[in-house]
Amino acid sequence: MGPGPSDIHPRVLQAMARPTIGHLDPAFIGMMDEVKALLKYAFQTKNELTMPVSAPGSAGMETCFVNLVEPGDKVIVCINGVFGMRMKENIERFGGEAIVVADDWGTAVTPAKVEAACCAHPDAKIVAFVHAETSTGACSDAKTLCEIARKHNCISIVDAVTSLGGVELRVDDWGIDAIYSGTQKCLSCVPGISPVSFSEKALDKVRNRSSKVPSWFLDLNLVMGYWGSGAKRAYHHTAPVNTLYALHESLVMLKNEGLENAWQRHANLHQELKIGLEEIGINFVVNEAERLPQLNSVWIPEGVDDAQIRSTLLNEYNLEIGAGLGDFAGKVWRIGLMGESCKKEKVLFCVAALKAVLGK
Amino acid sequence: MGPGPSDIHPRVLQAMARPTIGHLDPAFIGMMDEVKALLKYAFQTKNELTMPVSAPGSAGMETCFVNLVEPGDKVIVCINGVFGMRMKENIERFGGEAIVVADDWGTAVTPAKVEAACCAHPDAKIVAFVHAETSTGACSDAKTLCEIARKHNCISIVDAVTSLGGVELRVDDWGIDAIYSGTQKCLSCVPGISPVSFSEKALDKVRNRSSKVPSWFLDLNLVMGYWGSGAKRAYHHTAPVNTLYALHESLVMLKNEGLENAWQRHANLHQELKIGLEEIGINFVVNEAERLPQLNSVWIPEGVDDAQIRSTLLNEYNLEIGAGLGDFAGKVWRIGLMGESCKKEKVLFCVAALKAVLGK
Repeated sequence: MGPGPSDIHPRVLQAMARPTIGHLDPAFIGMMDEVKALLKYAFQTKNELTMPVSAPGSAGMETCFVNLVEPGDKVIVCINGVFGMRMKENIERFGGEAIVVADDWGTAVTPAKVEAACCAHPDAKIVAFVHAETSTGACSDAKTLCEIARKHNCISIVDAVTSLGGVELRVDDWGIDAIYSGTQKCLSCVPGISPVSFSEKALDKVRNRSSKVPSWFLDLNLVMGYWGSGAKRAYHHTAPVNTLYALHESLVMLKNEGLENAWQRHANLHQELKIGLEEIGINFVVNEAERLPQLNSVWIPEGVDDAQIRSTLLNEYNLEIGAGLGDFAGKVWRIGLMGESCKKEKVLFCVAALKAVLGK
Repeated sequence: MGPGPSDIHPRVLQAMARPTIGHLDPAFIGMMDEVKALLKYAFQTKNELTMPVSAPGSAGMETCFVNLVEPGDKVIVCINGVFGMRMKENIERFGGEAIVVADDWGTAVTPAKVEAACCAHPDAKIVAFVHAETSTGACSDAKTLCEIARKHNCISIVDAVTSLGGVELRVDDWGIDAIYSGTQKCLSCVPGISPVSFSEKALDKVRNRSSKVPSWFLDLNLVMGYWGSGAKRAYHHTAPVNTLYALHESLVMLKNEGLENAWQRHANLHQELKIGLEEIGINFVVNEAERLPQLNSVWIPEGVDDAQIRSTLLNEYNLEIGAGLGDFAGKVWRIGLMGESCKKEKVLFCVAALKAVLGK
């Protein structure tokens, strides 16, 4: 019950252990089409380029920035935690100019600040922000932020690593242009690949770059030959065949549950966790209105030894909870309620274990 | 029996289906140390930075070039097939100047040409070449090429995607500075991660770059915080936990067989395949002295329909062989004898199936 990887259903683990076939085998190509269709459902999009990048969420992030940021591009980037900082690092490594919109850790991005930055920088090309900040547990208003970006003729890049499958997320309705996620959070698949989706507007920017993408592995102009539209799939790199079996199975399970039911389950069990934690005197970092149900950041109670408690939970209760990252290291615990880890019995167990180790 | 992914032993598939634990769990960190030690054995190196990149072989290639090539660096790159061309593409995307040493497809790199290029370009910083060219089946003399590089004060970058575990490869004895491989070839692990190893000399160049590495995900200065020396493992990205279980198991199996025994097995069964193919009139692309045992490129017999034969083999015999790539498309088949696919029964089956479908 850390910030991911979450628990994996035995169906997903068993799917992954199926015999490996070729990445250009017609049977595999058929499964690729199903994975794309299932990801479109999960993202709520009709974007044709909706696919898993063959590397973890950090590479999904890099896929968005390395393709969309051209040298000299002004990018408005919202920072309210570790992953907004990582976005800034990406922008600068690819020659972009980062215009930072800062909010306190543990709060959502403030739309009015983004609006002000867009007005102050009418030549900005991109607005980038984190929907669900995994380092703090704050959920930002992706719909409003994308409206602001669109109004100012900016492309939006959205980090949905922790949000996909856990809270409401509607790529097409909200007008998100480029989005990346992870498999090891609310999808409860193994870590190692990163679902992404790109609108036509975003792809136009990629196709019309004045310089080549400074990555061969992540260049969408090449990757589209394998994952793009059209029946023909040309070799680009060897796909992670077995991990894609696992993703397929986890997406089938999400579809069977129903996306909105999954969102509701995360919301409901977060309420149960909240009641349990507050009963033992543990307080949340994020205000209730901006709180993610699937990533619960709580203040470590005064006088408690962070590392020792987490170590006791792991060794004596077989329970992992997450440490704080960056500014929150040593101050915050992060309790994940993601996918398969978001179950009533796990919530009750987690509260009981914390109660016991804290002597409450 | 294509050019990879090769068949996977059930032990490896089952290892991959073990429950996912956290990428910072002490038990997982213990396994990481074992993976590093086993990879050092497979590469025959003491290099401390010997680790799997969390993405396929193409990302292993990119890890070498994006970290080692700085803007303006002259890089001597040997091209005798598709993967040498991909190296050139990498060099240029990261601002390097590629000095091409060309050899015919299906032949090894000519050391005298590399020597001449080093003399003509004394300011070159790097020599890059493919040890086992997967697109043609030619094996180049890595030992001699690295000697030439060293003599001219160049760092060597070696593509060992198809060679690792299948033919003699000695990173330390041969003085290789940076090397990358794949898991889905002679290691018979699933595709998706890429073993790499870097000498101290190579790492010094990475540490002393004048500009930041133009990738966040692959920047070794950051990745070393997770995979480098020292007991502490700091979060960089979420490791592909289950794929690493699989790599661990496949490396244990390689160690149990013995590296030199594995090389000998590939050599022996290549001889059996060769006899069988020649009996039905199929000829090799590469001269015997430069031929890889694990990747057998053969000329498609005159008048034979490439796609139809491969399709019949797949659909009626459940047997995959590889198509030609690039200049060899439609002209060449590539028969893989890699890892678990390199077994006597598979060689005999493959020859019998080809004999039947070709009506010989």
